[in-house]
Amino acid sequence: MTNFVGRTAIAGVGATAFSKNSGVSELQLVIEAIMAAVADAGLELDEVDGLVTFDLETNTQIEVAHALGLKDVRFFSVTPFGGGGACAVVMHAALAVASGVAETVVCYRAFNERSGQRFGTGQTLPPPGPHPSSKEVSWSWGAPHGLLTPAALVAMVAQRYCYEHGVTSEDFGRVSVIDRANAATNPKAWFHDRPITLADHQASPWIVEPLHLLDCCQESDGGVALVVTSVERARKRGGRTAVIKAAAQGLGPQQGLMVSYSREYLTRMPEIGIVARQLWAQSGLTHDDIDVLMLYDHFTPYVLIQLEELGFCGYGEAAMLLASGALNLDGRWPLNPNGGLLGEAYIHGFNTVAEGVRQVRGEAVNQVKDAANVIVTAGTGIPTSGMILGVE
Amino acid sequence: MTNFVGRTAIAGVGATAFSKNSGVSELQLVIEAIMAAVADAGLELDEVDGLVTFDLETNTQIEVAHALGLKDVRFFSVTPFGGGGACAVVMHAALAVASGVAETVVCYRAFNERSGQRFGTGQTLPPPGPHPSSKEVSWSWGAPHGLLTPAALVAMVAQRYCYEHGVTSEDFGRVSVIDRANAATNPKAWFHDRPITLADHQASPWIVEPLHLLDCCQESDGGVALVVTSVERARKRGGRTAVIKAAAQGLGPQQGLMVSYSREYLTRMPEIGIVARQLWAQSGLTHDDIDVLMLYDHFTPYVLIQLEELGFCGYGEAAMLLASGALNLDGRWPLNPNGGLLGEAYIHGFNTVAEGVRQVRGEAVNQVKDAANVIVTAGTGIPTSGMILGVE
Repeated sequence: MTNFVGRTAIAGVGATAFSKNSGVSELQLVIEAIMAAVADAGLELDEVDGLVTFDLETNTQIEVAHALGLKDVRFFSVTPFGGGGACAVVMHAALAVASGVAETVVCYRAFNERSGQRFGTGQTLPPPGPHPSSKEVSWSWGAPHGLLTPAALVAMVAQRYCYEHGVTSEDFGRVSVIDRANAATNPKAWFHDRPITLADHQASPWIVEPLHLLDCCQESDGGVALVVTSVERARKRGGRTAVIKAAAQGLGPQQGLMVSYSREYLTRMPEIGIVARQLWAQSGLTHDDIDVLMLYDHFTPYVLIQLEELGFCGYGEAAMLLASGALNLDGRWPLNPNGGLLGEAYIHGFNTVAEGVRQVRGEAVNQVKDAANVIVTAGTGIPTSGMILGVE
Repeated sequence: MTNFVGRTAIAGVGATAFSKNSGVSELQLVIEAIMAAVADAGLELDEVDGLVTFDLETNTQIEVAHALGLKDVRFFSVTPFGGGGACAVVMHAALAVASGVAETVVCYRAFNERSGQRFGTGQTLPPPGPHPSSKEVSWSWGAPHGLLTPAALVAMVAQRYCYEHGVTSEDFGRVSVIDRANAATNPKAWFHDRPITLADHQASPWIVEPLHLLDCCQESDGGVALVVTSVERARKRGGRTAVIKAAAQGLGPQQGLMVSYSREYLTRMPEIGIVARQLWAQSGLTHDDIDVLMLYDHFTPYVLIQLEELGFCGYGEAAMLLASGALNLDGRWPLNPNGGLLGEAYIHGFNTVAEGVRQVRGEAVNQVKDAANVIVTAGTGIPTSGMILGVE
């Protein structure tokens, strides 16, 4: 049995405003988010003894600790593979807390991803040297064929998904419509008060067929921080505590980056299954126990694949599940009540985790009534991670 | 109490040849090292369910898992700050094993650091954009003043150390003489059969005063891998098991990168003290129980500072400890019997960890008799880590 399950919690959540041009440094963003998270947990900054972040984060633990005046940091780690680490950071923090290495671990992610370096821009790797690194080799399979952006890589999988399962762009669009409906009533969302219809989705320009503009998540400036500690310490805040009931990582057979060329099925992601099986085993919960789905929605087709790999429906059935209304805010399994990465902001999935905490606490703006257990996922198509947060 | 202490072990060690020009890719190096480590542990490749490495490693877990044919990887992590993570990778693996997340975690580091991109080359950061990252800001304090290489940064601290403690370049040189004496009798060391005298050290060219060439560690091509698992599974190999009796990380107040400008003492490294206090507390051991010192020796002056911060002597007393012969192979606390990074190879401190395992097993070429407990350190001047390995 995993030793952190039921014994660790996310005790604090903090965020900056989400924008397209923060006007401040990434360091300022991260410090603002961390100070808010620690205050939310009812703890003091000098209690922080661990710092975990994403591999793509530019704010190193050195600079963050320096800016916060931390004196005794005993755990620091980085999770690889960008947004795929969004839940892994919390898991690593929980391992440190449960193992007695650290007591109060801050997890953070902040960037000027819209006003600074944009992920949507094509790969700009330097030409490989005489001994190319394996990272360069990895990209070399697709780059010569024009697969230079995340959207291009995902589009190929989406095209195949349409072919295999007889679905259309409208089926992908239903994810956007849900997210934007939820964002419309979330004042912190970039797309607050701006819902869309399926017709809007269909009318939006192609990015890479079959992906419309409205199938691709935003690019955003902003920061989110979380405080992971023991359940006992988390209780001090009062109210409901967001307990970590399960947390797992997965890297699957013939794993790729955004797409895996050497698998039998281009449209399946066994690494999500690896995560899912651990989540059910650790928590002892089943799909029936889940009240809210916080799914990483960088590109709508990958939300459908997640639903299938997580077992909320069979392969090829996600479009039907969406069409049934089950994922609407008033449905059986409400999806991304905050508006997700498509509607609220793209903070590399960390705002998705934060909403999971708020839902368990019962403090979300679009609160799902009596939400007891929330499943949270991270970036997909890459080695990934997931969590179940729940009430005690 | 930390839950991995006494329950996890390094069960396997593997390495490539150490050279100045491997002639093969970094991916080939890492796979060769991992296959050797898993074989040494008496385990099968398909039992590997975790992969941990350094932030500067170019072989991602995706490529390594792909090349090895792994199907179900449940833990992957990266330790920040280069060689400072050399013991942290093992600690993170131990957390995963002790917490039940993974059973057999491979830690690896491989590079063509001499024939490919050399760390000794100056910083080549691009000019910062409109929103400089905190990493760029960090380097900006020293770069305009010519502090562009690790040697330059360390030299300033070394100069101050000489001034404060009345020591000379010869005192630094004694570290090189010990390492090279040990390397001379280690057939796997690059400097096998090539011992040096203190006069050789003094005659070697200045790199940055007060650092001679022979104060600076090698640049090397090669790879090292370790297998971390439970003590029970590690026992299968037979012989003595290298148990993890303590493992810790440390990031100190006003932490810098290689040098900290804003501290009261330029010549002290409180982050090493943070690590040391955890090592003694976790293991219940004291300096008297330690039989071998495996200290990260990228630059000789930082070995003296480590001895002081670890408490093997008082501040300013390391030169006397060295002069006393206590750190010679036949002394009270033999230093780096493999020849260290100065004599064997520079595999970012991971060959140092590997030698710690061999010493505990009683299988080292320059074996310290009845070595029961070995202290191992990682890169210094940066956020760092350390371990105590010992017999059951």
